[in-house]
Amino acid sequence: MIQVLPVEGLPQIGEGDDLAALIAGAAELEDGDVVVVAQKAVSKAEGRVLQLDSIDPSAAAREIAAADGRDARQVQAVLDEAVRIVRRRRGLVIAETRHGFVCASAGVDASNAPAPGQIVLLPVDPDASAAALRDRLRELTGRAVGVLVTDSFGRAWRQGTTDVAIGAAGVPVLRDLTGVRDPTGYELHATVIAVADEIAGAAELVMGKTSGIPAVIVRGLELEGDGTARELVMPAERDLFR
Amino acid sequence: MIQVLPVEGLPQIGEGDDLAALIAGAAELEDGDVVVVAQKAVSKAEGRVLQLDSIDPSAAAREIAAADGRDARQVQAVLDEAVRIVRRRRGLVIAETRHGFVCASAGVDASNAPAPGQIVLLPVDPDASAAALRDRLRELTGRAVGVLVTDSFGRAWRQGTTDVAIGAAGVPVLRDLTGVRDPTGYELHATVIAVADEIAGAAELVMGKTSGIPAVIVRGLELEGDGTARELVMPAERDLFR
Repeated sequence: MIQVLPVEGLPQIGEGDDLAALIAGAAELEDGDVVVVAQKAVSKAEGRVLQLDSIDPSAAAREIAAADGRDARQVQAVLDEAVRIVRRRRGLVIAETRHGFVCASAGVDASNAPAPGQIVLLPVDPDASAAALRDRLRELTGRAVGVLVTDSFGRAWRQGTTDVAIGAAGVPVLRDLTGVRDPTGYELHATVIAVADEIAGAAELVMGKTSGIPAVIVRGLELEGDGTARELVMPAERDLFR
Repeated sequence: MIQVLPVEGLPQIGEGDDLAALIAGAAELEDGDVVVVAQKAVSKAEGRVLQLDSIDPSAAAREIAAADGRDARQVQAVLDEAVRIVRRRRGLVIAETRHGFVCASAGVDASNAPAPGQIVLLPVDPDASAAALRDRLRELTGRAVGVLVTDSFGRAWRQGTTDVAIGAAGVPVLRDLTGVRDPTGYELHATVIAVADEIAGAAELVMGKTSGIPAVIVRGLELEGDGTARELVMPAERDLFR
């Protein structure tokens, strides 16, 4: 059995907050737990917040904003975070971030910002964010836990977002079944399961989107190994959808 | 808290099996549970199994099979199930099924088939399969549960598969937060969460791939509403990745 438990009672997160200490104070962790933390909380603790007023949009940003009916300063932030625009249509920019993630607005988002007129960016290195949280949780609680940093991404061909892992530490992100045989002896070829993304989605079911639960504990996974969310990025040479 | 519980002790599923009765006999269901059933089990109960020996591959199937190093009969089955080939490269055909799902081999798979030399196809109408299971579970147990039929799909841009819903009954598949405001008063635009896919992924964490757990109970979701997996298919006019 797996349990997905909310970490309740966390305050609004601000720059410099010791997120691990807040989680350790609010929950009773056990060895083997995976602590799933919403990207927005991690980014806010790390100060990855911009004032829209401080952004001077370029001509390119103004052009896209005018065509799309968006705020040119926010478009500028998206362009700054993106290494490649994958698709664009009115009101939607799908971009590749410098981490290699393909998502709407290169992860730039105004929802759940600390205050109106602000936008939140993805962490600079979400795997490092996860590793730092894991180390600090170990230090504070003595517990060996995994940590995932998660965000809501859209998908090609399917409606709606699901939460996925953008940072990981102490969690195997991919479970490779190549060479494993099914009950009839058939070898499972090229079967690799993105368990970190499935854990992220399970956590979102508890987090909700506006209910103020930025951290969730997933207990009972019995996973072995370690990985980083970078492993979840499809290498360009294997990507059929660039 | 959400719990993800395996339905243990189910036998290998064969054509004509009363899958709902097997699940009802192996688990203590509660109102509000979501029963997640692996597509392979549903397809086998519905007889959606082909003998490779019975398939006479066309010239087109032979050509693809030769280029890709695959079994021409299996390629023929993929072509028969597909309404459109989305991408193809050596060893991989990504196709749109008649349901509108985009996935590897149009859902045709030799793993976990009843016997060697057989392949398993997706159910003809997985939403109807889910509805029939839900009705039968209600009849047998008196419990009002939701049912998801799930399969492992790859994703654009990300490594690994995650389980997603291909059939649904008594479960809201999309949670639309449009109009909901965050704590600072910012309205969440176009935020729709594919909760059915997140539930499917959570269930996969318990199912595993070869551990013989074709059904899982997800308890404590407290979801309201109803939906079908067809709603998860991105309409062609909004699909940027056709």
